[in-house]
Amino acid sequence: MIDLRSDTVTKPTQEMRKAMYDAEVGDDVYGEDPTVTLLEETAADILGKEAALLVTSGTQGNQIAVLTHCRPGQEIILEAESHIFYYEAGAVAALGGVQTRTIAGVRGAMNPEDVKNAVRGVDIHYPVTGMISIENTHNRAGGAVVPVENMREIYEMAKSHQVPVHIDGARLFNAAESAGVDVKDFAQYADTVQFCLSKGLGAPVGSIIAGSKEFIHIARRWRKMLGGGMRQAGIIAAPGLIALTKMTDRLGDDHANALKLAEGIENINGLHVINLVETNIIVVDVKELGVSSEEFVTHLHSEGVLAGGFGTTSVRFVTNFDVSSTQIEDAVAAISRAALKCK
Amino acid sequence: MIDLRSDTVTKPTQEMRKAMYDAEVGDDVYGEDPTVTLLEETAADILGKEAALLVTSGTQGNQIAVLTHCRPGQEIILEAESHIFYYEAGAVAALGGVQTRTIAGVRGAMNPEDVKNAVRGVDIHYPVTGMISIENTHNRAGGAVVPVENMREIYEMAKSHQVPVHIDGARLFNAAESAGVDVKDFAQYADTVQFCLSKGLGAPVGSIIAGSKEFIHIARRWRKMLGGGMRQAGIIAAPGLIALTKMTDRLGDDHANALKLAEGIENINGLHVINLVETNIIVVDVKELGVSSEEFVTHLHSEGVLAGGFGTTSVRFVTNFDVSSTQIEDAVAAISRAALKCK
Amino acid sequence: MIDLRSDTVTKPTQEMRKAMYDAEVGDDVYGEDPTVTLLEETAADILGKEAALLVTSGTQGNQIAVLTHCRPGQEIILEAESHIFYYEAGAVAALGGVQTRTIAGVRGAMNPEDVKNAVRGVDIHYPVTGMISIENTHNRAGGAVVPVENMREIYEMAKSHQVPVHIDGARLFNAAESAGVDVKDFAQYADTVQFCLSKGLGAPVGSIIAGSKEFIHIARRWRKMLGGGMRQAGIIAAPGLIALTKMTDRLGDDHANALKLAEGIENINGLHVINLVETNIIVVDVKELGVSSEEFVTHLHSEGVLAGGFGTTSVRFVTNFDVSSTQIEDAVAAISRAALKCK
Amino acid sequence: MIDLRSDTVTKPTQEMRKAMYDAEVGDDVYGEDPTVTLLEETAADILGKEAALLVTSGTQGNQIAVLTHCRPGQEIILEAESHIFYYEAGAVAALGGVQTRTIAGVRGAMNPEDVKNAVRGVDIHYPVTGMISIENTHNRAGGAVVPVENMREIYEMAKSHQVPVHIDGARLFNAAESAGVDVKDFAQYADTVQFCLSKGLGAPVGSIIAGSKEFIHIARRWRKMLGGGMRQAGIIAAPGLIALTKMTDRLGDDHANALKLAEGIENINGLHVINLVETNIIVVDVKELGVSSEEFVTHLHSEGVLAGGFGTTSVRFVTNFDVSSTQIEDAVAAISRAALKCK
Repeated sequence: MIDLRSDTVTKPTQEMRKAMYDAEVGDDVYGEDPTVTLLEETAADILGKEAALLVTSGTQGNQIAVLTHCRPGQEIILEAESHIFYYEAGAVAALGGVQTRTIAGVRGAMNPEDVKNAVRGVDIHYPVTGMISIENTHNRAGGAVVPVENMREIYEMAKSHQVPVHIDGARLFNAAESAGVDVKDFAQYADTVQFCLSKGLGAPVGSIIAGSKEFIHIARRWRKMLGGGMRQAGIIAAPGLIALTKMTDRLGDDHANALKLAEGIENINGLHVINLVETNIIVVDVKELGVSSEEFVTHLHSEGVLAGGFGTTSVRFVTNFDVSSTQIEDAVAAISRAALKCK
Repeated sequence: MIDLRSDTVTKPTQEMRKAMYDAEVGDDVYGEDPTVTLLEETAADILGKEAALLVTSGTQGNQIAVLTHCRPGQEIILEAESHIFYYEAGAVAALGGVQTRTIAGVRGAMNPEDVKNAVRGVDIHYPVTGMISIENTHNRAGGAVVPVENMREIYEMAKSHQVPVHIDGARLFNAAESAGVDVKDFAQYADTVQFCLSKGLGAPVGSIIAGSKEFIHIARRWRKMLGGGMRQAGIIAAPGLIALTKMTDRLGDDHANALKLAEGIENINGLHVINLVETNIIVVDVKELGVSSEEFVTHLHSEGVLAGGFGTTSVRFVTNFDVSSTQIEDAVAAISRAALKCK
Repeated sequence: MIDLRSDTVTKPTQEMRKAMYDAEVGDDVYGEDPTVTLLEETAADILGKEAALLVTSGTQGNQIAVLTHCRPGQEIILEAESHIFYYEAGAVAALGGVQTRTIAGVRGAMNPEDVKNAVRGVDIHYPVTGMISIENTHNRAGGAVVPVENMREIYEMAKSHQVPVHIDGARLFNAAESAGVDVKDFAQYADTVQFCLSKGLGAPVGSIIAGSKEFIHIARRWRKMLGGGMRQAGIIAAPGLIALTKMTDRLGDDHANALKLAEGIENINGLHVINLVETNIIVVDVKELGVSSEEFVTHLHSEGVLAGGFGTTSVRFVTNFDVSSTQIEDAVAAISRAALKCK
Repeated sequence: MIDLRSDTVTKPTQEMRKAMYDAEVGDDVYGEDPTVTLLEETAADILGKEAALLVTSGTQGNQIAVLTHCRPGQEIILEAESHIFYYEAGAVAALGGVQTRTIAGVRGAMNPEDVKNAVRGVDIHYPVTGMISIENTHNRAGGAVVPVENMREIYEMAKSHQVPVHIDGARLFNAAESAGVDVKDFAQYADTVQFCLSKGLGAPVGSIIAGSKEFIHIARRWRKMLGGGMRQAGIIAAPGLIALTKMTDRLGDDHANALKLAEGIENINGLHVINLVETNIIVVDVKELGVSSEEFVTHLHSEGVLAGGFGTTSVRFVTNFDVSSTQIEDAVAAISRAALKCK
């Protein structure tokens, strides 16, 4: 089976397993786990932020950002198909009491003018705008990279309105690799940044939320409330450190594999890649085959490829550390066989 | 001053004042206020619902609908500029923990296909769709009437997904007057209906939320929590009864006045009515005059007309019971003078 | 029927009805109702606070205090049988996300030392103490008056911890009358005060929440969210003004009647007044009669007296404006007959 | 340093480290991590429940229980110093909108009659009782064991009121060891059970929440919202499995060490053990030494023993896997020296 459902399926490397085995640990609720502390300091440094906090998932990092930046009766501005709105089970309202103001973007990027117009004025009928969130890369936009310049414009407007900006950077290192910039170049245009140690970086568990010292101080309390305060969390931090320091450089391989896969798919009758493949995600329209995305996913499965439905007639493939360039060739052949079956 | 800011500014009639003076009252928290009971029964009957509840505002009625139909972690589908989303200070998230899924409508009406696509499937990442809300007439769409047929389609789709439908009918009687139908014709395609006794119907205070007996039983508890449980509420119900039974027939006058005002404005250089004037709301674009809506509202004020900004270059006028046909003529003259000042 | 269930059952006086009839009104959402404004200014003045806000019930006033003072993850300290904890349907948690830290008081008054010990220290495991609430008079303690001195001690301790103090003064004027002090004497030891215009003061609907200008500014937004923003609210404010300016002096009559009733009841075999009758509430233990409170309430009903169960073997009587001294004598006779029936 | 602050400080054993290294993992959000699945099935089996869920902390398990059993506007009954009320940062209100009804217990056990009286009747003013929580062993009561019989009485009463019962069993295996019963004997009298794999069982991270299949199905969604859905969580589950299957039998050693430590302390002038040492917690009053708990903890530290303040004049010691019987003797000597310093 070639698993292209998501980059979340990657297994820890041997080096990561060794790191867990050897991890120096302590009780992180008392602030005594040296491996966690090292990971948090390293992450803050790489992002150019004052402080960082280990959390158990991207969702937890995003939710903590909302809970820390906002209070009930506020509104956050975010892209119409962003993860926080689309895939976090309504938590932003359920836990934070915060309303979502969605803006349809182009390849995941909101027009700064639209964002500006969505910031609420002062009126008793209006929620107060409490945060602007930018997802980079943008999953449902097909792993699209939100340009640094777009982020700068939104951030400067936001600052003039005293509204904090958050990056849902679950795949921020993919964005940096694709754009040929440092993650700091993105992070400078946000107050807080969340990124995942799992996904493309390959750690088994964990994400980071970074920001000012004051922000992280309060965030720590919200993490506790959500149950994300852990004891010997060094066992999670140890492979996380390897992910952060040794795995970012190889994301280019995933992107090259994605382009290779996209080219292969484009040559298959009835299939069309509908996203600009900027990172490790390929979205394919199967409509012309006369099948639903669900049916095509089943066909793929029987040919040895795992992929995921992404709407009624679209299928998503995600390249990742556990899939080699050779397997990409096998995958193209398998996808081709699956397409033939539909005719 | 001719006050066209909103139909909320209407003062109670003499008959309403007399009714308050004479009102038979009791302690409504004990269910012993006969005037409240009569109003609730009358309202339920007129809407074709089992039961109804007096609340202090349209916002309270809408919030109670959300709190009663939904629970935290659910999502409601509603039009992108609907009152619940736009003008209720984010209460739906702050009080109910419910996420808003907005759909851009055409003249306030959501495309039933769009609504269907917005109903969430079963997936741990998705909030559960908890309610669909339809605003009728739709304020920000310029008092537009959502057609009965549109409501029927949405309702039938909703029923097939076990999702309740709510009407934010703050001005539902205006919709019925304009469409030439009974309010029951709209109400049949919704589980719950909120309408205002104030606004066009002229009562000083109060709205009604109606639905099944079971719904109202639970709604009563939420009203208590919001602080809407009142004692001798018959003093509010008495003028409300007059609003409900004697003031609905005269809404046609407001609509005729609105058309007359719209025609007058269309003849003024530099002003353009941008909504289809179906009920008592006129939205006018002032861009061509080279002023902001705020500036134009100031000019209007100095000429003796009160209106409200409705975006950066639009101004809203609302005809109401306290403005006569003759005053409409005076208003047109005053608006004309204000427009001349801008040149 | 002599209705002694509660002072909430009082009907508006003729003067109040006349005031409603004549009330000068405007749209209070625009801040244009002169009668509401006058009531709010008068109330603030009487309490010695900067500003005040008309709300529709004591519950709404209390909830707005919590929502404005606190944010989710905070804790409020309040007496174990206080109204906010006992009778507001859990709204403080449901709407405000605030935890209740209850302290058993003596005749409604919490020991300042206990309150001090309940203020949380700084620790990530602890909620932050966000408010201390004092109920005065204290309903479930039998209309007990919390002494000014007790309030002063709690307030000074609270100030040293930067914790705001709120008075749930639904019956604060009863407390002032009984203690022979001005309401300002209590109000000075709190940041915010809520009192009811209904209950002993006889208005049909309405309560007041008062505090600093800044507090009221934010409170207004929460009132809007709860649906307490009303239009021509002057019809409620007009009788409220009479309640506030003309009805406070007569509370002594209710207290005298309460003492008279208590003495009468003490002379009835099998009945025992278990509270110190300081204001207008009498709590009577019926255990010795061998009946439940519910059964005794039924017997009272058939003898022409309405009262309320207040636990399994206690019955509560509340004197009020609509019950004269003569009726108190009749009530004693009726209660006596009811007691005889139980033997 | 002999660390007796808490049993949370235990480091993973070599066997646990080896298990992490070798762990077979998968993406648990897709339900594909075999080690997680095995841990959950094993835990459910040991507790006698249908299903179980791995969570990242006891707090997360407890919060998920509340979120799944209750909805906003409900009330939970729990002991006045229980962890959920005392140490979870107000999360039960902040996240769940649920009010806490606290009952002072005796050695952590609530009187079933008190619990019964705290269940709310049907009245619009009352929150609905949504859950009863029992903490076993009870931390702040000094590791006290709540007897099976007490749990049975509460559970049977609860069932007759259709109220679910939850066990906060962070240290439930200590309770079972001390009472000489199986954990199933406790778990049978609850709908849901949370216990920690960390603490006395020694796993680095993780807790379990168990209940019916339907409960766990909904709980999974709440875990996702809280950010507790993890990817290759098998690295946490692997040492958790060892904790669950191989470490429970040795809790008796901790209890024996606790008794030994308590006896040693009792022989030190000025120190008094104030709890009945039933499990691994010893609470010592230092008042007679004329120092605060904070000061005494500092003295202990300089003598090589770590302990924690537990109120102004009490200090808590917790025996654990990383402290041997010999070290207990050393600890007694060190505590003795620290006490001498205070004279």
